[in-house]
Amino acid sequence: MKPINVGLLGIGTVGGGTFTVLKRNQEEITRRAGRPIRITMVADRNVEKAREITGGDVRVTDDAFAVVTDPEVDIVVELIGGYGVAKDLVLKAIENGKHVVTANKALIATHGNEIFAAAQAKNVMVAFEAAVAGGIPIIKALREGLTANRIEWIAGIINGTTNFILSEMRDKGLPFDVVLKEAQRLGYAEADPTFDVEGVDAAHKLTIMAAIAFGIPVHFDKAHVEGITKLHAEDIKYAEQLGYRIKLLGLTRHTPEGVELRVHPTLIPAKRLIANVEGAMNAVLVKGDAVGATLYYGKGAGAEPTASAVIADLVDVTRMHTSDPENRVPHLAFQPDAMVDLPILPLAEVQTSYYLRLRVEDRPGVLAEITRILADQSISIDAMIQKEPGEGEEQTDIILLTHLTREKHIDAAIAKIESLPVVKAKIIRLRLEELL
Amino acid sequence: MKPINVGLLGIGTVGGGTFTVLKRNQEEITRRAGRPIRITMVADRNVEKAREITGGDVRVTDDAFAVVTDPEVDIVVELIGGYGVAKDLVLKAIENGKHVVTANKALIATHGNEIFAAAQAKNVMVAFEAAVAGGIPIIKALREGLTANRIEWIAGIINGTTNFILSEMRDKGLPFDVVLKEAQRLGYAEADPTFDVEGVDAAHKLTIMAAIAFGIPVHFDKAHVEGITKLHAEDIKYAEQLGYRIKLLGLTRHTPEGVELRVHPTLIPAKRLIANVEGAMNAVLVKGDAVGATLYYGKGAGAEPTASAVIADLVDVTRMHTSDPENRVPHLAFQPDAMVDLPILPLAEVQTSYYLRLRVEDRPGVLAEITRILADQSISIDAMIQKEPGEGEEQTDIILLTHLTREKHIDAAIAKIESLPVVKAKIIRLRLEELL
Repeated sequence: MKPINVGLLGIGTVGGGTFTVLKRNQEEITRRAGRPIRITMVADRNVEKAREITGGDVRVTDDAFAVVTDPEVDIVVELIGGYGVAKDLVLKAIENGKHVVTANKALIATHGNEIFAAAQAKNVMVAFEAAVAGGIPIIKALREGLTANRIEWIAGIINGTTNFILSEMRDKGLPFDVVLKEAQRLGYAEADPTFDVEGVDAAHKLTIMAAIAFGIPVHFDKAHVEGITKLHAEDIKYAEQLGYRIKLLGLTRHTPEGVELRVHPTLIPAKRLIANVEGAMNAVLVKGDAVGATLYYGKGAGAEPTASAVIADLVDVTRMHTSDPENRVPHLAFQPDAMVDLPILPLAEVQTSYYLRLRVEDRPGVLAEITRILADQSISIDAMIQKEPGEGEEQTDIILLTHLTREKHIDAAIAKIESLPVVKAKIIRLRLEELL
Repeated sequence: MKPINVGLLGIGTVGGGTFTVLKRNQEEITRRAGRPIRITMVADRNVEKAREITGGDVRVTDDAFAVVTDPEVDIVVELIGGYGVAKDLVLKAIENGKHVVTANKALIATHGNEIFAAAQAKNVMVAFEAAVAGGIPIIKALREGLTANRIEWIAGIINGTTNFILSEMRDKGLPFDVVLKEAQRLGYAEADPTFDVEGVDAAHKLTIMAAIAFGIPVHFDKAHVEGITKLHAEDIKYAEQLGYRIKLLGLTRHTPEGVELRVHPTLIPAKRLIANVEGAMNAVLVKGDAVGATLYYGKGAGAEPTASAVIADLVDVTRMHTSDPENRVPHLAFQPDAMVDLPILPLAEVQTSYYLRLRVEDRPGVLAEITRILADQSISIDAMIQKEPGEGEEQTDIILLTHLTREKHIDAAIAKIESLPVVKAKIIRLRLEELL
């Protein structure tokens, strides 16, 4: 059968991996897809490197627009990243009737609505399995595997860099800065790690999963995004004593008042499987009303794991490209005319539990003052540790875990507690999820 | 758009769950599928119970053949189980041009080749996500999510009953018989638990996964099937001391000499995520050459988790049923004309590591005799525990872990060691997998 011709934009880490895996597993992939899938054209700024990798059979150009307009190209694979030229290229490819496969989470999370509308109008597919959790087929699971369910919530470890850093901080008791440097040295963190450690990358991926899970547009701008840069090693230790691990979770939950969309360090019970996902690995826990909790685990980044997702999309598009658009899997899992725009819940209204660490004077009555303020906000306490002060010290730490409350109530309580003269430092506040 | 009409064969636990979930999540499912999916006809021996559950809108009959031949029915859902009448019904449904969705692992594992050939000839789809690991979308992951990969191996905890029993045996140090009774009381094991505890159910599911992973026919008759009935609580304890957990694994591996296909109790490192899957939960670990290891976890049985998989198949078939057959996902992941029939490796040729427990006389030189026999078979030792004999006892246990060797070599070594006068009982032999 006639091969499918792929135009590749960007032959860096993931692009190179895609080329390698497509070539190495050519026979196996053809046996599955029913026809050969071959990269016939590559655009990269570094034309020489691109020629070196592709070896000669492939047309190489430094003009990406030449690829997205080429009449021979059936599917464009966009691996440039970012929302600048990548957006123009994807829209131009769609305009030219090309199907698009992309690993670009930033693009989909911020401009997905516009891109999917354009694709819809031109009857082409935009596939983005590689945009979330690398090689784990989580988009497919959400969009096709769990169609029977009302999805209740999703909690994901969807950034390998931060999970590696948190694992090391816990293992070795080291502070964030030190571990970050080690992660950079080992290649787990980039020279400018901001997007990862500030939670932006995780929020991109979370936004995409929320859209698919609930049939809503992408709303990256409304996500609460909080990274791990302010996390202290001692809170990881205290959490452990209380039976919890701290993970940077992307959380989205369907509530009657709106959709929660938040990324922040989170205490989770150490006995949960997802709490034991270590190093640079990713995992996504999905709660459906029929299926219960299901978990998906694997490598969230890297050349070949990401290529695995890119190629799975290529096979899907190859299988479906001649079929009636209405028989295809919809981009955001729900049919375009069946999307709804649920409100995103402001953080102040989110209900969760809290971990609080308070630096206080070591004298009788302190705890009573604190618990009275919490009680006034209807916040009840689930567990507590009060440290013995060190030899000659007059201050000590109190660690509290609360039951479920609203963020605005804990905000109010914290403001009042911090104004007590016996409280000697800003309160450390982390969120806690049981994930049941 | 015109609804899809479903005929349901059997409205027991899973059938009832399917009816309930389809009804409860009707709106959500329609938004995804693009058209309503409704059960219009039900066959069950207990017509009254079926009427009670379905409530009146649905035609109920005790004649399942009336459903598979009914001109109004688009898709037949087979939830009767077994390979008797279920097989006739599925073939008759196909003959009448109906698509089929089934949860029947025994049927697919033993008669899948015949059924898929019939479906192919009639251009209809046979979907069976619910046949493996309940609500976990593992068939979809293998068949569509990992198409880029050469699958190297799959290791699955794919029987909830046995995993529950093993978890309890470890937790409470109780023998198999006692825990089985408890499992039966709690509804985790059936009155006749043979298929579960002897590994047959797991072997059915493993056979199906192997076919999809490697593009081979189903070969249940060639699987090595070994259950947990002979497992001793003390071996679980010794394994734990050595850093391992014992799980009933279904294992299939692609080797140059053939495909391994085996179900047996297996030691796995306690630090692996899959080793921490407890109770009646299921998990499947898949190793692909590009993606590395990915894991899929969730409920492997129960009314609504299984219904989740049945309905996901219904949505898939609804989306694809008007499309060209060659654009559909092939039944066994590979195009029918691209299947190969790799040999299944006889157990004697399988390479794995072993756990051996030997009951021996407590006197000098015993270990030397044993290790000499192992060395003669080129089997090297990875770890050892020699128990101090109890007060007044003249016998003791030696526990050995070996490096990789072939089953036939360990068989030969065990036969020789058992013939030593100092060895006082049959050797306990378990297999060990690092799962890396």
